[in-house]
Amino acid sequence: MAMASPHRILSRHHRIPFKFILTRSFSTSTSRPQNVPHLRTYDPHTSLSSLRVNPSRLLNTLHHTSQWGTGHRYGAHPTETGMSRLALSDSDKSARDWFVETTKALGCEVSVDEMGNIFAVRKGREGTEGKAATFVGSHLDTQPRGGRYDGVLGVVGGVEMLRVLEEGGAETGFPVGVVNWTNEEGARFPISMVSSGVWAGEIPLEKAHGLKEVGGGTATMRGELERIGYLGEMPASHEAMPMAAHFELHIEQGPILEKEERKIGIVKGVQAYRWFTVEVVGQEAHTGTTPFNARADPLLAASWMICLSNRAAASFDGALASTGILTLEPGSVNTIPGKVKFSLDIRAPTDKTLDMLEKHLRSDFDNVVADATRNGQEMSVTWQTDSVSSAVYFHDSCIKAVRDSATAVLGDENLAREMTSGAGHDSVYASRRCPTSMIFVPSRKGISHNPKEYTSPEDCAIGADVLMQSVLRFDRQRVATEG
Amino acid sequence: MAMASPHRILSRHHRIPFKFILTRSFSTSTSRPQNVPHLRTYDPHTSLSSLRVNPSRLLNTLHHTSQWGTGHRYGAHPTETGMSRLALSDSDKSARDWFVETTKALGCEVSVDEMGNIFAVRKGREGTEGKAATFVGSHLDTQPRGGRYDGVLGVVGGVEMLRVLEEGGAETGFPVGVVNWTNEEGARFPISMVSSGVWAGEIPLEKAHGLKEVGGGTATMRGELERIGYLGEMPASHEAMPMAAHFELHIEQGPILEKEERKIGIVKGVQAYRWFTVEVVGQEAHTGTTPFNARADPLLAASWMICLSNRAAASFDGALASTGILTLEPGSVNTIPGKVKFSLDIRAPTDKTLDMLEKHLRSDFDNVVADATRNGQEMSVTWQTDSVSSAVYFHDSCIKAVRDSATAVLGDENLAREMTSGAGHDSVYASRRCPTSMIFVPSRKGISHNPKEYTSPEDCAIGADVLMQSVLRFDRQRVATEG
Repeated sequence: MAMASPHRILSRHHRIPFKFILTRSFSTSTSRPQNVPHLRTYDPHTSLSSLRVNPSRLLNTLHHTSQWGTGHRYGAHPTETGMSRLALSDSDKSARDWFVETTKALGCEVSVDEMGNIFAVRKGREGTEGKAATFVGSHLDTQPRGGRYDGVLGVVGGVEMLRVLEEGGAETGFPVGVVNWTNEEGARFPISMVSSGVWAGEIPLEKAHGLKEVGGGTATMRGELERIGYLGEMPASHEAMPMAAHFELHIEQGPILEKEERKIGIVKGVQAYRWFTVEVVGQEAHTGTTPFNARADPLLAASWMICLSNRAAASFDGALASTGILTLEPGSVNTIPGKVKFSLDIRAPTDKTLDMLEKHLRSDFDNVVADATRNGQEMSVTWQTDSVSSAVYFHDSCIKAVRDSATAVLGDENLAREMTSGAGHDSVYASRRCPTSMIFVPSRKGISHNPKEYTSPEDCAIGADVLMQSVLRFDRQRVATEG
Repeated sequence: MAMASPHRILSRHHRIPFKFILTRSFSTSTSRPQNVPHLRTYDPHTSLSSLRVNPSRLLNTLHHTSQWGTGHRYGAHPTETGMSRLALSDSDKSARDWFVETTKALGCEVSVDEMGNIFAVRKGREGTEGKAATFVGSHLDTQPRGGRYDGVLGVVGGVEMLRVLEEGGAETGFPVGVVNWTNEEGARFPISMVSSGVWAGEIPLEKAHGLKEVGGGTATMRGELERIGYLGEMPASHEAMPMAAHFELHIEQGPILEKEERKIGIVKGVQAYRWFTVEVVGQEAHTGTTPFNARADPLLAASWMICLSNRAAASFDGALASTGILTLEPGSVNTIPGKVKFSLDIRAPTDKTLDMLEKHLRSDFDNVVADATRNGQEMSVTWQTDSVSSAVYFHDSCIKAVRDSATAVLGDENLAREMTSGAGHDSVYASRRCPTSMIFVPSRKGISHNPKEYTSPEDCAIGADVLMQSVLRFDRQRVATEG
């Protein structure tokens, strides 16, 4: 699959202002934010839509933070390493300290809750003290063998937004903020998005605090929060820290944008998914002495099921079916297995589509077994439900803010497309308690959770611009409705 | 699948003499062989075709030998256990000692070769001393979790033949014998049929002697032969111990005879088989974020290949294709595997058919990969050949002896059928050096290499009768040709 060159796309479409291309491609400025005072007070008639992030500064910041928990090297360039910054490790503490110091230096009020979530809030216009902020949020923790962009880009994009606002002395209608959520990956403490989950009131604090690190260690989340000094006193709760909205910039972690040569994914929600373990029991038999008509071969049946699950999912709009685990017994070249188990991961943009797909597959699998038993063989198939996650639908007002911002930044609405996220994010829990949307940027070859995870500097900057503009548009809309 | 009742079959066919049914079904005699002297000298005009084994004695002997290495109990009846008599273990020594004592007591000359193969030879008519014997052969070793019939029935059937001949004072034209081959199973020392292989000159003695026991032990075949006193001085060679023919009675280890309600398999040869490891390499990816058109899913491809291998084999007469092992990486519910390996075991009655099947499958698998790569995905399939075994064709004269004997014993040629063995046996190596054939009897549900392996007493006795009659017919034929 040919790699899409941003230059090729940009020049091909001819719609993005020349100045933009210059900025994206040739700027090598590493200027730090100037200490610009709050010269400009909020004015609903003054547009902030010309504000743009500083691409070099954004990328320098991202790579700067990669000094804490540098991972696997895959190339010769200094930035060609992955990341290994497990939640609440010493390297995570260093990244957190940087986040706190940096946002404080930018004039933010920083608070930490009982889950170690760090909220940096920048004041809005006078009289909005104490009002909920419009947040940008993501996470600084990574997979043990992860990349530099997953989560980190979202937080760094938020910091860049604060810098641009501060630099330009721009005052927003209401407070805006950046949140670093704890242990999003679930890689060290085995519940993903656990701290936004506690904030949303969907995961009990005690359960989260009691989580033990994976791999046989004895550390708990609470213990590690305490150890690194990030066990805050503020309750981890949407009531203690309400949000007006939550925007999250994230790499796509899939190949769609790159394949379609687009720059921005306007994320309307998160797929529904269900995980099953399907067990097919047949009859163990000798491969050499058992003719086909005397077999009840569960691996042959499972193979048909996997093929049929693919075929069925392809017939439903946006649906997926995948098998990542398959085990069999006893596992000998000349023995037809007696039992096969395989994982079945089905997904769809809506719960209704997923219902239909599941029903279809149950019928398909029953037919496979019926075909086998028509030969007089005994075979059975059973489904065990391992995980059910309903579809998440983001908020229209936030989706609109992202769409309008993408069009404004890209100058061509065809360079953006609506998407459904295939993976979970902190925005899932945020969306339970406030209007939410996400912004995706292209992932090279769709690779993620891997040192080679990569998004070009240009795409990172475009994403950060759309993020900032989405916050500003939402803020402006808020003023229009709340006054 | 309904179990075929021997009584139902016998009564349905109405062709087997009433006396035969009585003998098979109601005899409870446990009489030992009487010490009948050699009253009857060889007479080509006297038929021995009325000789029949003693079913009770045959079964009693079989169960008697099961005291050495009794295995897993699966039912309440005293005989409802499996066997665990690994080659050259203490229990194998006991069974061997019994075999030597019993055959010596029946007037046989017993010799042991360097591989521990035990040959018990009963004299023929005067003047044939030193001539090659017509042999019955099989093995007394079992799988570690095996049954009572595999191998043992063949040896015990041979001993019963010696008893009947001795009891009846019958003299054969040429010597007849029984051989117990060492380590047929390959379960302790990991080459199957290794000692008949050395006898046939196809496996070097040093290699066989140097075999280490599986499971990390340090015992070698030579060491264990020495330890239990069965390292003979006679060379393990078809030159030192030539055979006029080799007949082997064995359980089918498959379901065909039971399914077709037949009693005897006339084994014309052994299937050709080839074992491959097929490796399909695609692209590891996230199940949630990777649309179908961006996937290179090697498990989906492997599933199609397994389905196609089944379909293709079914289109070739007597061919089989089976997969008993499948492994994948990395093995996570929400990760499309990057690599899948599976075993492919293909079989056919002739090498030519197997060639065609393999060619067909290579083309099928290439097509699966081509389909995947048409979507722009990178995928590859490679075949590793693990084992190749050519088809074995038994000898017409031996096959005829078995066919004629089966018809005579059963009284209905439809109760027998020609077969190709799906598994290897000592007869494979024997057939390289002398005319050979095998006799199969039904295996309940086709189960073998399992404690529940079972062949009814009636079927064991029918098999032993056909075995003995085959030897006698071959012997008579030999007199006719050799004089």
